[in-house]
Amino acid sequence: MGWEVEGMFVPEDRVIYRFSPRMEPVAEVGVGEEVVFRTQDALGGQIRGEGDSMEIDFSRVNPATGPVWVKGAKPGMALVVEVLEVFVPEGQGVVVASRGLGVLPDLVEGFRAKVLPVKGGEVHFGDVAVPLRPMVGVMGVAPAEGEYPTGVAHRHGGNMDAKEIGVGARVWFPVFQEGALLAMGDLHAAMGDGEVCVSACEVPGEVRVRLRLEEKPLCLWPVVERPEAFHLLVSLPTVEEALREATREAVSLLSSGLGIAPQEAYMLASLCVDVGITQLVDPHITARAVIPRHVLGL
Amino acid sequence: MGWEVEGMFVPEDRVIYRFSPRMEPVAEVGVGEEVVFRTQDALGGQIRGEGDSMEIDFSRVNPATGPVWVKGAKPGMALVVEVLEVFVPEGQGVVVASRGLGVLPDLVEGFRAKVLPVKGGEVHFGDVAVPLRPMVGVMGVAPAEGEYPTGVAHRHGGNMDAKEIGVGARVWFPVFQEGALLAMGDLHAAMGDGEVCVSACEVPGEVRVRLRLEEKPLCLWPVVERPEAFHLLVSLPTVEEALREATREAVSLLSSGLGIAPQEAYMLASLCVDVGITQLVDPHITARAVIPRHVLGL
Repeated sequence: MGWEVEGMFVPEDRVIYRFSPRMEPVAEVGVGEEVVFRTQDALGGQIRGEGDSMEIDFSRVNPATGPVWVKGAKPGMALVVEVLEVFVPEGQGVVVASRGLGVLPDLVEGFRAKVLPVKGGEVHFGDVAVPLRPMVGVMGVAPAEGEYPTGVAHRHGGNMDAKEIGVGARVWFPVFQEGALLAMGDLHAAMGDGEVCVSACEVPGEVRVRLRLEEKPLCLWPVVERPEAFHLLVSLPTVEEALREATREAVSLLSSGLGIAPQEAYMLASLCVDVGITQLVDPHITARAVIPRHVLGL
Repeated sequence: MGWEVEGMFVPEDRVIYRFSPRMEPVAEVGVGEEVVFRTQDALGGQIRGEGDSMEIDFSRVNPATGPVWVKGAKPGMALVVEVLEVFVPEGQGVVVASRGLGVLPDLVEGFRAKVLPVKGGEVHFGDVAVPLRPMVGVMGVAPAEGEYPTGVAHRHGGNMDAKEIGVGARVWFPVFQEGALLAMGDLHAAMGDGEVCVSACEVPGEVRVRLRLEEKPLCLWPVVERPEAFHLLVSLPTVEEALREATREAVSLLSSGLGIAPQEAYMLASLCVDVGITQLVDPHITARAVIPRHVLGL
């Protein structure tokens, strides 16, 4: 598709639908190497036009390409995924909504799909042009225990649907299993925080990443390191729990990072940590807590 | 304090503690005129040092300066408050936390207050310097009915604690009563989204505004018009309700503004409207839905 592949790529037909502790790796990657994940869209490419929107095979929804075995990754470490490029081809994306799903579950009758031209750096929704802003909706590693459908997010990552997981992100995951077992998919050409109707502009594409290992994770949830800030991503069944736990983790990181008491860190967080949400519509809601880099002195 | 006052100012001892339909105005202002509100801090200036932190008279918390009668304002119109300047004097602010309050109500024992030097464009929290970013925590008009303590936010505005209500904001309020009856206070020198410990860097100060009337409100909640986007602010008892209603209002505004069906507007919102929160800690939680200006063609 987009660029000349140097080194390794993982094709879009090597996918998982569940993150589990003992997944079968489809490739092996070393630290410092680049690898390209080619990804299907979140609907498994089943919707090509607006007419065939009723024929969804839900067992093919949310494919994640991988997993990849990371050489040297051991439980207790952190895997840092540096996102070098997110390529969305010109063509089309699709947005879907369904009765019973989304923030306003009664608004839509039945199931609706809309095909959206993607061209010239924009997503075209009728007369409205939304700037292209490619992001990776699903990214994760093998969990400590249990199985998580790729549509669900938790400590291992998964369907966090965070706009900040785009070019320039360094996504820290706790490593729970040997080899880490990284997989990703669910690219969006454009999405608003909340992903309110249950989907974004869903597209296939390619993600080029470079991998690094660190001795220890920043916290036991995924953290997106960006030039200006660290974004803690916490995914739990309710928005209240997710927001509370994201706050708690931010306070904990400030407290340990600055060597101050938790009560002090709590008051400092109230001045400078932005708490919000990335998506409100998946089985686990994802909250973010954004800690400015300068506050941590990093 | 800050600038040479031209025209009218409202002194900081003319305050209300409740927004109600028939408040007594302390001044009268015409459309296009500038007016300066001098404001106490949210604690009514009761905390000057860290030692006297146990002696809070809660009946003096959250004073809002005003209200001001706006000439020509009639129910059904919109009052647009253009924020020209938010002046926070050099000196000190205070942040407080208390057991039973905030996102982590069990973290703090009893009541804690911390005095924070405000100087050189920064708020100093121990060794950490947080950039000064002045905002107005409480701004509102007389409600349609009922009384709202100034610490509570609803359709009339009130304690929305929104960072976007700073210089450059044009805050649209539905006018529910003749004269609108505008009051404001609760300046923050710095705050993070969520205001997680229940307070920000609380400071006295001055707010210079210019008033305008429009025939109709954008919606029946406050809307902050900024150069890039419209921020709908919805305040309800739970975060889930607030987020849902903010989403519903954004969809409604997109649907009517673009002349498209609500289901279409819902899918468009999922691509480009950012849903989040301004504060999680007041009796009503405030959610924001941010609609990019270009999407509305405004």
